[in-house]
Amino acid sequence: MVNFDSFYMQAALDEAWKFQGLTYPNPAVGAVVVKDGKLLSIAAHQQAGAPHAEVLAIKDAYYALTKDEEILPINESLHLHNYLLKNAGELFRDATMYVTLEPCFHYGKTPPCSLLIKNLGFKRIVIAILDPNKKATGGARYLKESGLEVVVGVKEQEAKDLLEPFIRWSKSRFIFFKFAQTINGNLTAGTISNIQSREIVHQLRNKIDLLVIGGNTVRKDRPILDSRLVQGRAPDVLIYSKKTEFDAKIPLFKVPKREVFIEDSLERVKEYKFIMVEGGEGMLKATRALVDWYMIFIAPKSLEKPNYTFNKKLRFLHTQNIGDDLLIWSKNG
Amino acid sequence: MVNFDSFYMQAALDEAWKFQGLTYPNPAVGAVVVKDGKLLSIAAHQQAGAPHAEVLAIKDAYYALTKDEEILPINESLHLHNYLLKNAGELFRDATMYVTLEPCFHYGKTPPCSLLIKNLGFKRIVIAILDPNKKATGGARYLKESGLEVVVGVKEQEAKDLLEPFIRWSKSRFIFFKFAQTINGNLTAGTISNIQSREIVHQLRNKIDLLVIGGNTVRKDRPILDSRLVQGRAPDVLIYSKKTEFDAKIPLFKVPKREVFIEDSLERVKEYKFIMVEGGEGMLKATRALVDWYMIFIAPKSLEKPNYTFNKKLRFLHTQNIGDDLLIWSKNG
Repeated sequence: MVNFDSFYMQAALDEAWKFQGLTYPNPAVGAVVVKDGKLLSIAAHQQAGAPHAEVLAIKDAYYALTKDEEILPINESLHLHNYLLKNAGELFRDATMYVTLEPCFHYGKTPPCSLLIKNLGFKRIVIAILDPNKKATGGARYLKESGLEVVVGVKEQEAKDLLEPFIRWSKSRFIFFKFAQTINGNLTAGTISNIQSREIVHQLRNKIDLLVIGGNTVRKDRPILDSRLVQGRAPDVLIYSKKTEFDAKIPLFKVPKREVFIEDSLERVKEYKFIMVEGGEGMLKATRALVDWYMIFIAPKSLEKPNYTFNKKLRFLHTQNIGDDLLIWSKNG
Repeated sequence: MVNFDSFYMQAALDEAWKFQGLTYPNPAVGAVVVKDGKLLSIAAHQQAGAPHAEVLAIKDAYYALTKDEEILPINESLHLHNYLLKNAGELFRDATMYVTLEPCFHYGKTPPCSLLIKNLGFKRIVIAILDPNKKATGGARYLKESGLEVVVGVKEQEAKDLLEPFIRWSKSRFIFFKFAQTINGNLTAGTISNIQSREIVHQLRNKIDLLVIGGNTVRKDRPILDSRLVQGRAPDVLIYSKKTEFDAKIPLFKVPKREVFIEDSLERVKEYKFIMVEGGEGMLKATRALVDWYMIFIAPKSLEKPNYTFNKKLRFLHTQNIGDDLLIWSKNG
């Protein structure tokens, strides 16, 4: 038999994982709206400044129920709140909201999601975990006191995993190591991952504060290390290297509005909150004690000899297909 | 916006993949029942002789709607058909059936699924692909002529992938290579995969006709190659080896009701239909031209040097979490 609460929460989690890292400094959150047992929408928070997952899920559900096309071009959160409160009427009276994180309860740039959910008359809300952020918690209690049926703890561990980067960068910093390998463990045979995978890396470069890379890679690959595939900005770069001399014509040095550090230490990361490391076996070993998560792209081929080890136990958190590649998010096991 | 047909078909596909290989000689098939937009059940065909996916999905949906516990102990297909026809009344009048393969249309051990779906009054059926088996096709046309809305082709390529082993073993044979590796490509560092992964391998050993293994592995590991973890039967074994002398005390030789061949050729596979190869780099290379699919278990660790290549492009077909391991089904790319 299907456990419906778990099933819909998993759909919310899977949607949120598509935007892991891209919501910085906000958490990745997913939401699903179900009415009379009928799935209406699946949505996720996509980037800071854009509407929260709950608002997007309600927007999509409203459109699914009404086919009112006037809501479609509204992308600003406050306008969506107002439009929905004005037009949704009794539509959500019997609806259930699934959300991977407790809905916010503070007035920020928009009124809190908790208020919207209450005012639209939702009957039930299923929350994977309460918000550990003191500024944001209270939504679940408020909704319970407002008469909704509130369930907390469905897929709790999965939601904790999803939220971990946010917890870490909020408190101190989150460091993840991105690498691409063939199925048999080769890190170096030309361009390993496909264009969609590389676009995701560029989307992340557009969000991170600092990119850490090894000196050998810089000398050999002469990279730009920007976000050109997604027309984004270029992060600051820390080149981890004993030798401090580099050819100044290497493109990464010519990107405007970027700081580049060349240092024989990784101490610099302490000045940043959201840090990506890129590299091969040398950097995997050098950053072993520092890295929180590994973002591993796996290409479907075994053509060259494998070539890395870094003495690590991992825990696989989430797997996605990215075109014909696989992406595995992992933490230390 | 959610594409509901794709979403529910994917749920049916994911369920069916859990039983890939285990339904031999039948195809792996998944089914989902939705009524008034409400998901009622997700089910898959689990083994030959057991009910088809559609029947199990209708059983679960019937129970979800009625809470009639009398249906729960009924596991035999004909009894389920009869019980449902007698008791379901108008329950499925507005329901939609999603199924990864066209429902059967021939009288075998049970009346055809197409007849059950029609007689229960389903309104709509979404089918990923038509049955390529001439004996079984015709269901979609029959249902259309009976007045159902019939949609064919949702997630067609995914359903073709799911069905490929069945197509191959029906026509000639299906050969898959199972191996377990660490994330960085080590095949040999002790027991690599977890107990759940090894149980799945034993479930498959209980279904295959022939297990192919290399002589070096037999000499070194002295294996039993049975299905003891699932109390199953032991398949015939082909030991691929130039040297034909083996210690007769190696446990695999002592298993009753099994043939063991020791041969310097792989020709023997032609006498079988459903064949698993197990081994490391040597066998991957030796069977390169012969193998249809790779079943790759990936353990979340990078502790030892990687050690295989076999000059192959792959296409990843489906990924599942098996406890803390990943399982990737792949074909030649």
